[in-house]
Amino acid sequence: MNVEEYMIELGQQARDAARLIAKAATGTKNEALLAMADAIDNSRDALQSANQKDLDNGRANGLDDAMLDRLELTPARIDTMIEGLRQVAGLPDPVGAITDLKYRPTGIQVGKMRVPLGVIGIIYESRPNVTVEAASLCLKSGNATILRGGSEAINSNQAVAECIKSGLTAVGLPETAVQVVETTDRAAVGQMITMPEYVDVIVPRGGKGLIERISADAKVTVIKHLDGICHVYIDSDADKAKAVNVAINAKTHRYGTCNTMETLLVNRSVAADVLPELAERYQAIGVELRGCDATRELLPYINEATEEDWSTEYLAPILSIKLVDDMAEAIRHINKYGSHHTDSIITENYTKSRAFLLEVDSSSVMVNASTRFADGFEYGLGAEIGISTDKIHARGPVGLDGLTSEKYVVLGDGHIRN
Amino acid sequence: MNVEEYMIELGQQARDAARLIAKAATGTKNEALLAMADAIDNSRDALQSANQKDLDNGRANGLDDAMLDRLELTPARIDTMIEGLRQVAGLPDPVGAITDLKYRPTGIQVGKMRVPLGVIGIIYESRPNVTVEAASLCLKSGNATILRGGSEAINSNQAVAECIKSGLTAVGLPETAVQVVETTDRAAVGQMITMPEYVDVIVPRGGKGLIERISADAKVTVIKHLDGICHVYIDSDADKAKAVNVAINAKTHRYGTCNTMETLLVNRSVAADVLPELAERYQAIGVELRGCDATRELLPYINEATEEDWSTEYLAPILSIKLVDDMAEAIRHINKYGSHHTDSIITENYTKSRAFLLEVDSSSVMVNASTRFADGFEYGLGAEIGISTDKIHARGPVGLDGLTSEKYVVLGDGHIRN
Repeated sequence: MNVEEYMIELGQQARDAARLIAKAATGTKNEALLAMADAIDNSRDALQSANQKDLDNGRANGLDDAMLDRLELTPARIDTMIEGLRQVAGLPDPVGAITDLKYRPTGIQVGKMRVPLGVIGIIYESRPNVTVEAASLCLKSGNATILRGGSEAINSNQAVAECIKSGLTAVGLPETAVQVVETTDRAAVGQMITMPEYVDVIVPRGGKGLIERISADAKVTVIKHLDGICHVYIDSDADKAKAVNVAINAKTHRYGTCNTMETLLVNRSVAADVLPELAERYQAIGVELRGCDATRELLPYINEATEEDWSTEYLAPILSIKLVDDMAEAIRHINKYGSHHTDSIITENYTKSRAFLLEVDSSSVMVNASTRFADGFEYGLGAEIGISTDKIHARGPVGLDGLTSEKYVVLGDGHIRN
Repeated sequence: MNVEEYMIELGQQARDAARLIAKAATGTKNEALLAMADAIDNSRDALQSANQKDLDNGRANGLDDAMLDRLELTPARIDTMIEGLRQVAGLPDPVGAITDLKYRPTGIQVGKMRVPLGVIGIIYESRPNVTVEAASLCLKSGNATILRGGSEAINSNQAVAECIKSGLTAVGLPETAVQVVETTDRAAVGQMITMPEYVDVIVPRGGKGLIERISADAKVTVIKHLDGICHVYIDSDADKAKAVNVAINAKTHRYGTCNTMETLLVNRSVAADVLPELAERYQAIGVELRGCDATRELLPYINEATEEDWSTEYLAPILSIKLVDDMAEAIRHINKYGSHHTDSIITENYTKSRAFLLEVDSSSVMVNASTRFADGFEYGLGAEIGISTDKIHARGPVGLDGLTSEKYVVLGDGHIRN
């Protein structure tokens, strides 16, 4: 197989399918999603036996336990895929919504219509359930999709792809609206990210290494999410109980998520009041603390934080702590060392809450709330395809709207420009 | 001078200035814009003598008349620069606007805040007035700017830059918020478009060749506008008077603009009724017509349109004409040969008007209106930095909002996630 030609063929088919999907009725798209859910429900055996092949190959190839766990399609995970499809069917359709339609002095009426992006390429690692999640969100938002999963999940992804295809054809939509790349050749990724004539945007889902490689080489816009180095800043005007609750929740609710706090900033004036109690609770839960010199004067038994700690996403029960003189120093620290993901201030002070919201350059900025809330479901988007730490196009959790764009519509009555 | 080091220094200064400009008060930014206007008004002699140097050099270097015309800073053009600055000062400030702030079931309030993109790089050709236009829009939208004008306008641009700097420093804003690249070395462009750590978005303004080169090499998002191959489709249900008026206006109001019609599509069933009158009027104005075979059966005296004509932006008194069987064929032609800029249908038919608006994949889609309306001022944006034919981020005329992005803001009262 010539990989380049194969990918161009997928691209051409996706471009053609995109025109049909873009104008598909909301009801038709929803029926397709429900038909996919039924197809998956009726193909549990086929899915699990395909998955078993991947698991066997994975073990033979020495995949570690974490990889094998992500790869596994348990009955519960199949249930979640089915439930996810039904939820996306229930979401409002963003396509075609017209807003701000207003008359201009010339008499024309000008507004904006929300429209699909066209063809979306998804590049992801081992979890086969991403195939369904990504395909359903792209379909609902009127886009065609090319999905390139990890080679270790190729059999599972092909089996899922069959269910997706049967859902599309059941309602008369082109099966090329969702295409799963059938080769495990790495050259397929290189081709996919450098054919802007067929692919409008790339959404990589995986580790930082994958995303950095794709971003470096892509000739197509990449909606990307690198680190989640999130901060909570406990201000001098913080309510102590709120500060403790939020700081514990932001770090310990889950360790491996991108919206987990990695660095705690504490105003020097309240550190002696709040830190000993907090440290005791963290240590009871088993969180390793690493502090700046000033922190270690208050908590002499904890480890020392190095410069590297301030820019590390631990994804683990480790927390770095730094004392700051004031909110300005906290904001400077966040904008310098953070990853523009999610940062929260704990304060009762009105003026400082407004300044923090304006000045922190992150995709989500919070007051008196846990960073763990940064999530498409919590924000009411209904679903998310990822969290963007970029500034262009979509920022923060990316839901259906983030997979669309707006064009201008102009309504006249034979108007000409003078 | 080491160009790479010089550009990195500009980038670092811009990044630092961006933090300050992002939080500058609306009133302060407006005062800076008005101070720039005054500085230009008080520096007319200096501006014109700097411009004279560029004109003399240009003549010596053999620039053609069109280039020299674009380069010249006439008193009227200086007036327009001053007027433009005052208009931008009068526009609403997009920065900090919060929308859709709503309570979620968990009790947190989630909304979106409009924020600057950061550092915007502008790359443009000979017109020195772009320096002021671009700098004023970027400043008002809270962004720092690095401006790289054509080498033929270097003296004019430096003189304009002095006025901009004096306006910034007059109100206490950092003069590095707007930096004009001082070297004419082409390597400066290459460096500027490949340092995403300092530049967030590139806006090229110039010919298609410039924009294609920049897009091919950039490692930063480019808000770009390539061709303007715009269509008017005269439907079988068109009102004849509206069809003739719009078709004449869309082609002949101005020839050199990107929103000028380049191809006229006519439904076969009304061609005999509408085309002879239209052709007579075009020919009276001096527009060369090039038709498909069916068109030439009705208008045997016109030239033949080749395949190449359908994808040509004439920017000249030339029009290609094609007959189509129905609206579906018109839409297919537009989506295939057009440049996703601006396309209009002339029809009295309700159902077809809705389908055309939905299915034509262009940044502006119109019903019964001249394509010439596709313009930031006509749309009520107050100003425009360009027209984007991309789908990502900004589509169509790009005003102040297009130079910003939205981050999420979350307001809680000590809320934690369960």
